[in-house]
Amino acid sequence: MKVDGKPMRTLWPAAGRDALFVIDQRALPHALVIERLADVAVVHRAIRDMWVRGAPLIGATAAYGLALQCSRAAGDVELQQAADHLRGARPTAVNLAWAIDRMLAVLRPLPAAARAAAAWDAADAIAEHDVAVNAAIGRHGLALLQAVAARKGGAPVNVLTHCNAGWLATVDWGTATSPLYQAHAAGMALHVWVDETRPRNQGASLTAWELGHEGVPHTVIADNAGGHYLQHGQVDLVIVGCDRVTRRGDVCNKIGTYLKALAAHDNGVPFFAAMPASTLDPALRDGLAEIPIEERSAREVTHLAGRTAAGDVVEVQVVASGSPAANPAFDVTPARLVSGLITEHGVLPASEAGLAPLLEGR
Amino acid sequence: MKVDGKPMRTLWPAAGRDALFVIDQRALPHALVIERLADVAVVHRAIRDMWVRGAPLIGATAAYGLALQCSRAAGDVELQQAADHLRGARPTAVNLAWAIDRMLAVLRPLPAAARAAAAWDAADAIAEHDVAVNAAIGRHGLALLQAVAARKGGAPVNVLTHCNAGWLATVDWGTATSPLYQAHAAGMALHVWVDETRPRNQGASLTAWELGHEGVPHTVIADNAGGHYLQHGQVDLVIVGCDRVTRRGDVCNKIGTYLKALAAHDNGVPFFAAMPASTLDPALRDGLAEIPIEERSAREVTHLAGRTAAGDVVEVQVVASGSPAANPAFDVTPARLVSGLITEHGVLPASEAGLAPLLEGR
Repeated sequence: MKVDGKPMRTLWPAAGRDALFVIDQRALPHALVIERLADVAVVHRAIRDMWVRGAPLIGATAAYGLALQCSRAAGDVELQQAADHLRGARPTAVNLAWAIDRMLAVLRPLPAAARAAAAWDAADAIAEHDVAVNAAIGRHGLALLQAVAARKGGAPVNVLTHCNAGWLATVDWGTATSPLYQAHAAGMALHVWVDETRPRNQGASLTAWELGHEGVPHTVIADNAGGHYLQHGQVDLVIVGCDRVTRRGDVCNKIGTYLKALAAHDNGVPFFAAMPASTLDPALRDGLAEIPIEERSAREVTHLAGRTAAGDVVEVQVVASGSPAANPAFDVTPARLVSGLITEHGVLPASEAGLAPLLEGR
Repeated sequence: MKVDGKPMRTLWPAAGRDALFVIDQRALPHALVIERLADVAVVHRAIRDMWVRGAPLIGATAAYGLALQCSRAAGDVELQQAADHLRGARPTAVNLAWAIDRMLAVLRPLPAAARAAAAWDAADAIAEHDVAVNAAIGRHGLALLQAVAARKGGAPVNVLTHCNAGWLATVDWGTATSPLYQAHAAGMALHVWVDETRPRNQGASLTAWELGHEGVPHTVIADNAGGHYLQHGQVDLVIVGCDRVTRRGDVCNKIGTYLKALAAHDNGVPFFAAMPASTLDPALRDGLAEIPIEERSAREVTHLAGRTAAGDVVEVQVVASGSPAANPAFDVTPARLVSGLITEHGVLPASEAGLAPLLEGR
């Protein structure tokens, strides 16, 4: 998508296949910083410390991490060590394991000497596949928005989204945002309510930044406010991303998603999660019981970075000194609250029967 | 309640009845600042700009504001002008209008020369009445907590609260916190989940500060996290305050309360609102349709104050530049989601029949 009017992706390989460039998302929205990652250790750090974040982007980044490893030392032991190291960088996103497994499936059968070139090709393929998948998600989601637009007779379609399932969370297009960008490009009158998404503010700092650069009308709101707008008919549709979906359609996504799903349900507003097929975890059924929830640092709650009037980005404490904090990063929205899953294969019901097309052959 | 081990209230009249002292809550939790308010204009500003906040405290502050006016000029015209001016300082809290009406009922029949002394007495009575009401709310709420404690056999009782309905929102004790302070004083094992309560962070900065000074175990969480803890059996009871309650029991409280009520209901966890009888607005029935919701400055969402490592309190921007924000300050929780209202007259059902004892004579 566009930054200052020019097309950009979240990551791209160096022409010489000796490094990976990524947007360092910690600096957004205040500055656009590009980082050059040249070995597995720094790729691990970039994933763990959220220079890159979002399930699909984490997967693609890890794939390039294995390619970097293969350019340096591509033996079975080194490959496995790199894979294990990268796999531990974030515990929740199923795409991380998915991308690593896909890379290993390509690389293991090859002699070590052939692995580097194959690894860069395979990582490129994972990145291009992500772009194609998200474009397809956008087309299917667009149809949902068009149905609402037709009903509203030209009045703006109001969509609520949570966190950043935008192009910054993927290689391009985004998942939850892909229908929005396609609708905007098609000339639809659209307005997006953007949850700020505490504690890391991905909505206020990333989704709002994306939508602004793309010219999509939007309003940032506190995470507390979505229920109020849903009660008052000011939301036509909720679209979020997801980090892991179980075979019966339970959706694990950024903390707070469950609350918005409850409010959508209570007000008869459709609630959709945009989901690349790779986000499905067929090994799991009951999301609440089975999905491990990443507990992140309390400091993300007690402290927060922002820009001063002078233009410096500083970290400030916002919680009373001495008060402890807790920081679960995700929650699980039960399938009963999910109107459908927007996948690259169409909009599917959130049920084992509905997701059957994605389960075939897995 | 206690600050650094010493008892304190949120406001107290000067001994010479020529000023009102208040804790300037904008400086919390980083500093304890006491302001001396000496005329109606500054009292209006203190309410409007939230040096003081919380429905009961706003009412008591406005009452002292009228006393200050009477000390200066107590004619019918001046009194009415001051009352009108103070009434407009915050649109939502019914206690503001309640306290002003009560003062006017006392003062209007009196000759102007007798009004000053009577006004200070009446304002003192409103403040003392608030303390007594909150103590009674605490006793009734304590019984609810004791029932949970008995069931849990000594394991800590986990309570979730939203915003600050603590002693800082009242003259003393608080409403939602009064049962907590009484339970803690009685030796009950207790733990409080404190919603940070964006955009103004009253939970993280005020409730956490209060609980810390009182020694009550607590954990600050993002507003997004409460649903997760409710899903996982880590909340036994939700207790919030309220700014206005309709005759059928719809609860208007800080934005985001509705989302927590939905999650409590979805998980079979009782959801209570602590309510002084003065918070009941018998003129209203349907809270969603009839309660005007205060829309506050977008800057409260886009910017935020905190303390730097160097100890300075600075304001930082946390939303992408150029992105608009919206800031509804309250939402309405329908009575169907409210397990009961903890009043000074007992725990009452959230229904017109249940609230009948409060409606008699009003």
